[in-house]
Amino acid sequence: MSKLLIVGSVAFDAIETPFGKTDKILGGAAPYIALSASQFDIESAIVSVIGDDFPEAYLEMLRKHKVDTTAIERIPGGKTFFWKGKYHNDLNSRDTLETQLNVLADFNPKVPDAYKEVEIVMLGNLHPAVQLDVLNQLNKKPKLAALDTMNFWMDNALEDLKKVIARVDIITINDEEARQLSGEYSLVKAARAIEAMGPKYVVIKKGEHGALLFHEGQIFFAPALPLEEVFDPTGAGDTFAGGFTGYLTKTNDISFDNMKKAIIHASNLASFCVEKFGTERMQELTKKEVQQRLQQFKELTQFEIELT
Amino acid sequence: MSKLLIVGSVAFDAIETPFGKTDKILGGAAPYIALSASQFDIESAIVSVIGDDFPEAYLEMLRKHKVDTTAIERIPGGKTFFWKGKYHNDLNSRDTLETQLNVLADFNPKVPDAYKEVEIVMLGNLHPAVQLDVLNQLNKKPKLAALDTMNFWMDNALEDLKKVIARVDIITINDEEARQLSGEYSLVKAARAIEAMGPKYVVIKKGEHGALLFHEGQIFFAPALPLEEVFDPTGAGDTFAGGFTGYLTKTNDISFDNMKKAIIHASNLASFCVEKFGTERMQELTKKEVQQRLQQFKELTQFEIELT
Repeated sequence: MSKLLIVGSVAFDAIETPFGKTDKILGGAAPYIALSASQFDIESAIVSVIGDDFPEAYLEMLRKHKVDTTAIERIPGGKTFFWKGKYHNDLNSRDTLETQLNVLADFNPKVPDAYKEVEIVMLGNLHPAVQLDVLNQLNKKPKLAALDTMNFWMDNALEDLKKVIARVDIITINDEEARQLSGEYSLVKAARAIEAMGPKYVVIKKGEHGALLFHEGQIFFAPALPLEEVFDPTGAGDTFAGGFTGYLTKTNDISFDNMKKAIIHASNLASFCVEKFGTERMQELTKKEVQQRLQQFKELTQFEIELT
Repeated sequence: MSKLLIVGSVAFDAIETPFGKTDKILGGAAPYIALSASQFDIESAIVSVIGDDFPEAYLEMLRKHKVDTTAIERIPGGKTFFWKGKYHNDLNSRDTLETQLNVLADFNPKVPDAYKEVEIVMLGNLHPAVQLDVLNQLNKKPKLAALDTMNFWMDNALEDLKKVIARVDIITINDEEARQLSGEYSLVKAARAIEAMGPKYVVIKKGEHGALLFHEGQIFFAPALPLEEVFDPTGAGDTFAGGFTGYLTKTNDISFDNMKKAIIHASNLASFCVEKFGTERMQELTKKEVQQRLQQFKELTQFEIELT
């Protein structure tokens, strides 16, 4: 069976939404990615870094989801990356109230030997130099390297970012970031420009408006499930990335047709993530719930029109 | 064969977009609705009002699309409604530079006798008192009355608007208007609140982000086709409404399943409207082009996932 290598932050988040606030809870891209991918019963490993203050219980919880945590390096005397943010009333925008990089500032990723010939790699949102470092540690080119990034790296590490973009097969970014990276307002043109930078596949995430998959002129669209209430959007994009790469790992098929299914699974899983604070909903999510909501996705999008 | 009764403005528009500007060209909700509906080879009639200055050639063009123009009243000495607007660079927002109500200020709609027992009525965006007047002139309750409106009437004629909303079967409004009308941010909750005001079906238009159809807890979503370039968004919502009601008129089937198809046809037709200034693209649109783009809609949205 193929395995999934995940690189990304492991963090403490303190989150405030119109519905409530949390103290420090489990956060960071990697746990969201791993929990989402775990829905496909695959083996995965996280490459990351934490401090002394990080509870063993969080690692234990990840291991229960078949996540190899041996490459999450614990730095003696170090403190775990911390992010504090507050969402606005519409939940579409947020203010960062505090960022403490802590051990993430000097992160030297170490890919476990058992993952050096891995088929699928998910490079979660992190400094692009770290993402590149991980690719360079692999013994062979993976079947699929997927990259998630954000505008922060476009502003602060564009040259490194361009290098890693040139090395990956697929990139997932949001609509505003796609526009910033490409200089094109039209997402069709933006995707084409980004494909020219390296990735053969481009996924543009539009939050509550769904996600678009682009590949050589073909386009597929997955809506976001219309929800009564979004409780906490934190981690939705990472959950999407984990669902996407988790499904591809499980099926070991990176055709465009299979990526369509992957993007639907990804949207489906992300729709759960936002229903509770942090990773809470993803930790308890059952296969039955996932299947039921996939049925809702079908009803939401499938139609029959005969063409003449 | 069933027929479609259309009420709406017939106007001159002067439009400026980042791509160019027009002098006075054919505008108003009704011509967009009628041209879009004409793709289904149905008979329709427009109830509206124009001034002396309105070219006969525009009416002739509509008649060539099987649109009955006898109930478009020409007011001697009157001037046609005129709107001038300028779109911002992202084309998602616009400034109204000039509005001359002219003959529309004293519009007394007159439904032609041949349409007083019509099955489908499309009440295009107009003063809700005019929309009500039209419903009151019908000899019997139509099979389906559809209403389009906008925030202007919520701000300025809310009581009349609520009366007409209570009388129609389906309402089409955009996301911000749905929020304003319902007081709910979540579109799922907003649709439920609007259903409680009367219409059994609610369509929420999200522009480039597609459209949602709500009915008693069921939801269907039609994306907007991702376009390389939007040239002029004017009339896209009216074209959507015309495609929707035109398809329902053609098929004479107002089941939820058929409405799904209608909303896909509606999105499909709206995707053409924005490719040129005003009604230009809709006037020249061929059946072959429409069918080809429907195939693109299928490829964009259809997937196969087996549920366990």
